[in-house]
Amino acid sequence: MTAPNRNTLWAETLLDELVAGGVEAVCVAPGSRSTPLTVAADAHPDLTVFSHFDERSAAYFALGRARRTGEPTPLICTSGTAAANFHPAVIEASQARVPMVLLTADRPPELRDSGANQTIDQEKLYGDAVRWFRDLPEPEPTGRKLRRLRTDAARALAESTGVPAGPVHLNVPFRKPLEPVEVSGDVPDDLPEREPLGAEGRDGPFVRTTGGRPTLDDAALDRLTGALADAERALIVAGPADPSTAAVDGATAADTAAADASDATASPGVDADAVSRLATATNAPVLADPLSGLRFGPHVDTAPVLGGYDGYLDDRVVGGWPDPDVVVRFGASPTSKPLRNYLADADARQFLVDPAGEWRDATFTATDLVAADPDRTVRALADRLSGADAAAQSAGDWRDRWLDAEREYWRAVDELGADDLYEGAVVADAVERAPDPATVFVSNSMPVRDLDRFGRPRDAALSVLGNRGASGIDGIESTALGAGSATDDPLVLVTGDLAFYHDMNGLLAVARCGVDATVVLINNDGGGIFHLLPIEDFDPPFTEQFKTPHGIDFAPTGDLYGLDFARVETLPAFRDAYDASLDADGAQVIEFRIDGEASHRTREAIHDAVCERLGQ
Amino acid sequence: MTAPNRNTLWAETLLDELVAGGVEAVCVAPGSRSTPLTVAADAHPDLTVFSHFDERSAAYFALGRARRTGEPTPLICTSGTAAANFHPAVIEASQARVPMVLLTADRPPELRDSGANQTIDQEKLYGDAVRWFRDLPEPEPTGRKLRRLRTDAARALAESTGVPAGPVHLNVPFRKPLEPVEVSGDVPDDLPEREPLGAEGRDGPFVRTTGGRPTLDDAALDRLTGALADAERALIVAGPADPSTAAVDGATAADTAAADASDATASPGVDADAVSRLATATNAPVLADPLSGLRFGPHVDTAPVLGGYDGYLDDRVVGGWPDPDVVVRFGASPTSKPLRNYLADADARQFLVDPAGEWRDATFTATDLVAADPDRTVRALADRLSGADAAAQSAGDWRDRWLDAEREYWRAVDELGADDLYEGAVVADAVERAPDPATVFVSNSMPVRDLDRFGRPRDAALSVLGNRGASGIDGIESTALGAGSATDDPLVLVTGDLAFYHDMNGLLAVARCGVDATVVLINNDGGGIFHLLPIEDFDPPFTEQFKTPHGIDFAPTGDLYGLDFARVETLPAFRDAYDASLDADGAQVIEFRIDGEASHRTREAIHDAVCERLGQ
Repeated sequence: MTAPNRNTLWAETLLDELVAGGVEAVCVAPGSRSTPLTVAADAHPDLTVFSHFDERSAAYFALGRARRTGEPTPLICTSGTAAANFHPAVIEASQARVPMVLLTADRPPELRDSGANQTIDQEKLYGDAVRWFRDLPEPEPTGRKLRRLRTDAARALAESTGVPAGPVHLNVPFRKPLEPVEVSGDVPDDLPEREPLGAEGRDGPFVRTTGGRPTLDDAALDRLTGALADAERALIVAGPADPSTAAVDGATAADTAAADASDATASPGVDADAVSRLATATNAPVLADPLSGLRFGPHVDTAPVLGGYDGYLDDRVVGGWPDPDVVVRFGASPTSKPLRNYLADADARQFLVDPAGEWRDATFTATDLVAADPDRTVRALADRLSGADAAAQSAGDWRDRWLDAEREYWRAVDELGADDLYEGAVVADAVERAPDPATVFVSNSMPVRDLDRFGRPRDAALSVLGNRGASGIDGIESTALGAGSATDDPLVLVTGDLAFYHDMNGLLAVARCGVDATVVLINNDGGGIFHLLPIEDFDPPFTEQFKTPHGIDFAPTGDLYGLDFARVETLPAFRDAYDASLDADGAQVIEFRIDGEASHRTREAIHDAVCERLGQ
Repeated sequence: MTAPNRNTLWAETLLDELVAGGVEAVCVAPGSRSTPLTVAADAHPDLTVFSHFDERSAAYFALGRARRTGEPTPLICTSGTAAANFHPAVIEASQARVPMVLLTADRPPELRDSGANQTIDQEKLYGDAVRWFRDLPEPEPTGRKLRRLRTDAARALAESTGVPAGPVHLNVPFRKPLEPVEVSGDVPDDLPEREPLGAEGRDGPFVRTTGGRPTLDDAALDRLTGALADAERALIVAGPADPSTAAVDGATAADTAAADASDATASPGVDADAVSRLATATNAPVLADPLSGLRFGPHVDTAPVLGGYDGYLDDRVVGGWPDPDVVVRFGASPTSKPLRNYLADADARQFLVDPAGEWRDATFTATDLVAADPDRTVRALADRLSGADAAAQSAGDWRDRWLDAEREYWRAVDELGADDLYEGAVVADAVERAPDPATVFVSNSMPVRDLDRFGRPRDAALSVLGNRGASGIDGIESTALGAGSATDDPLVLVTGDLAFYHDMNGLLAVARCGVDATVVLINNDGGGIFHLLPIEDFDPPFTEQFKTPHGIDFAPTGDLYGLDFARVETLPAFRDAYDASLDADGAQVIEFRIDGEASHRTREAIHDAVCERLGQ
């Protein structure tokens, strides 16, 4: 193949190398300066192109795909503020360690800072939020430049899926003509057949990246094993999981896609079997965040996985318990504030296992940072401690105490909350009735908190995801629909009304990207979460500036975005609509209007009653 | 007054100083960490609070207000990605030189980079796009700290309204409690009455900023005057105007608000009378960009203001004309590409007058940069050249040649375009029929281009505004509604469908901020502007990736946002709906569905016919 001009050749080479590295889809926002990239993406036979009008939504959509798959979906936009609209999702990707590759078209150097149209300073636009930034040189049809371009593309994938994974920004300047018009003499005729792509004689990626992960040596593992073997009351705490990226065990994304799924599991975080073996070997209960990848799955039938702790880590229940003496933690900081406080108060040796060596522990509780891959570390510890002659385990009554509390907790919630309508019941229902398998995305603010407290462990392959990097309520629909676009699983989104409002633009992906979804919209008419905060006692300004009731009737979003919109007011009606939606094609929004304040009071009343009963 | 705790005191002091400096309103997005700021803003008797759910829209709304008034409307948001959603508007403010003050709440230093919830790296979040960044110290109830805080607030206003005006970012960390709860002993009892606010004994602003503007000395003015006096064919080119900020002539915003409006005119850019005098004195036609503040106004009845040049700066018309010999330019780079090309090809001495000494001239045409305030410079030149004994003027036949072409142009457009329905006719109608006075906001992409070509100079006080800093199609509704919120003028917004879609969230300001508006939605079902570009000849990918027809039925936005929504298909129907809307309260969207491709062909056909006729 030969390209009609250098820009076409440049963009084709860049996209071709990304595909060779395993990329299967890109998200494109229409624009002029990005024409070479868009044309190349559209023309590539192995690429799916998701077209979005709003770059903010586009970036969250790409984030959602990578959140679900561990592999980046590159983003293409034109120059100017388009690129700045990516910024919120870039920050979420950075903090949640989600792979992302940003390809921002730009004006050529001579037009920068000249007052030229749609020209802004795109150098390091995202600051320290990206793992790597490079302002690509101007397109040039020489082997040397094209090889560097392929190397840059390969490196972008490697950096974005490295440790920690995150966003990478390539700024890509183009000078006119931007279209694939023939420019005589622009691309030399005498390049060999594949030379125009700079990859003569190589199959697959031009540069194959073999990514290492931090792994402990035997001496370090011995020390960790020893501490756990000596523990009398061990605890495993699994926070929100980082996505499992393709760089695991040195495979390229392309290799991984074709390989056995055991390492490149779609489930994020640490392997459930390894955690189960470690828990069994040490009699340690596993406190599993709803976003840890461990609260749901077949392993919960046998492993001591706990999901109700947010509801019973209360002085009335655990006040008389002994502290744990060894805690093994991995993942991000747990969603549960009672759990974070419990850990902060515990007189224990706490190992925080983090592959990037970051201290994601805002209570400064950990005593030991283990800068190593948590999956490998847990596997190695389980292997060492599972043997028949392993050192003394922590006492079984420690584990049973937790299991008893957990069992009692769910029984009490069932009994004491049975007659009440509150937001947590809707969230619990949505997860309990989700198909197996399913992808369940929960918004920040109240839904993830209610899921944490009322989302019971279940032996179904639920990929439960959220944006807990920066915990914003922006981009929720787009992230969910992106996740849904990357899998054949049914997709469930549970969101509140303010988050739903913030990213309504993202709903267009239902029609334009062909994503089916069941959207559970818990509408409490404003910021229900503020009822949890002391500002509730100051009105004004509470109602007008915090609770902010808006009275928006969301039903027109059905017609606007081509969705089925249903409104329910009771749990039975919700269940019917929910089950029907999961059987239906397309996207359905099920709006449950519920009083946020009453819901909060009920939530607290159930909590009090449950803790009273468990504490007796 | 005494505050219940240090956070309350800190926020009250900050807001109080901003108000003392002239601030009359703030835009707030609900959040928790920003509670002290929101509470203080809500409690201040002299502040209007505009509440927005989407921070991106909030920032554009604030931008629109400042665009219209020249004074900043500070923005308040919580920590996390909320702040990143401001970024697109921050860039527009930076490039369009619009005052903006960003108050982003943040976690205290000890929680940063710790995995704490909603905690991101907010230091220098907007990079070089802000004029000034400061990470405020932690709140402390001492006179010294509060004085520094007041100084910082005063400086923020001064920097944001300086030369060039633009965004300023104050990052404001708070530690709990965030609410105005009494914290015993937190604020000393023995501070004098006004000491808690750190402004004992001072009326008005704690620090009064007297801002200078670059002004030429007599020698420099003599040289400029000489060049113009010697010119035989002088031309004045007014590009999109910077807002006139409050810092003019050393007044604080507070002073200016109370002072004579002659300097603090709401009309942006260079004083129309001064330009008229200079034009008369030099026989120079004034090529007035639709966003220059000079195409519309009473002065067009007497001054040689031209608005049709985008349609006749064509070789067929001006090919045989002599070049100008002296060009005086001010404002940003003109919207008109034919004008930019004409200037680039002209063999002339071109003075680019820019107060910030920036070269907003992407064709690198200017021969002389005059780093001085354009308003003062034009006044001074007019004063010197208007005398009876002024040096020889450029020839009257040069001016008359332009005036003849202009007159013929509009006659030809009227005659040749009379029977055609095209987007330009809708835009022209919207401006022609706008009330006097009115604020008219035009979107980027096609509307501003059509306005440039078909927007006839009119002796009405129209404040015609657009976002030409980065020329994005994001934030359009919010910017327009923000501008409308700052004035009693009727507000007209002319936008295309993609821009309308991008910022639909902004429409909530109609209800929540009580802004009336007439929204002219020219719906050509996708990116009509791409018909102007060579990519049109490549389909695929033209239709799917560039034109992107979406088929969205926007009618549900009426119910969703509480607007009247009407759809028209003919110009008479449009005129009826438009006039009715201007007489009505509330907001009306008038959607004109029009074929983008046919519209473009008509536009070109009219252009060709007009140029043929004028060239004869």
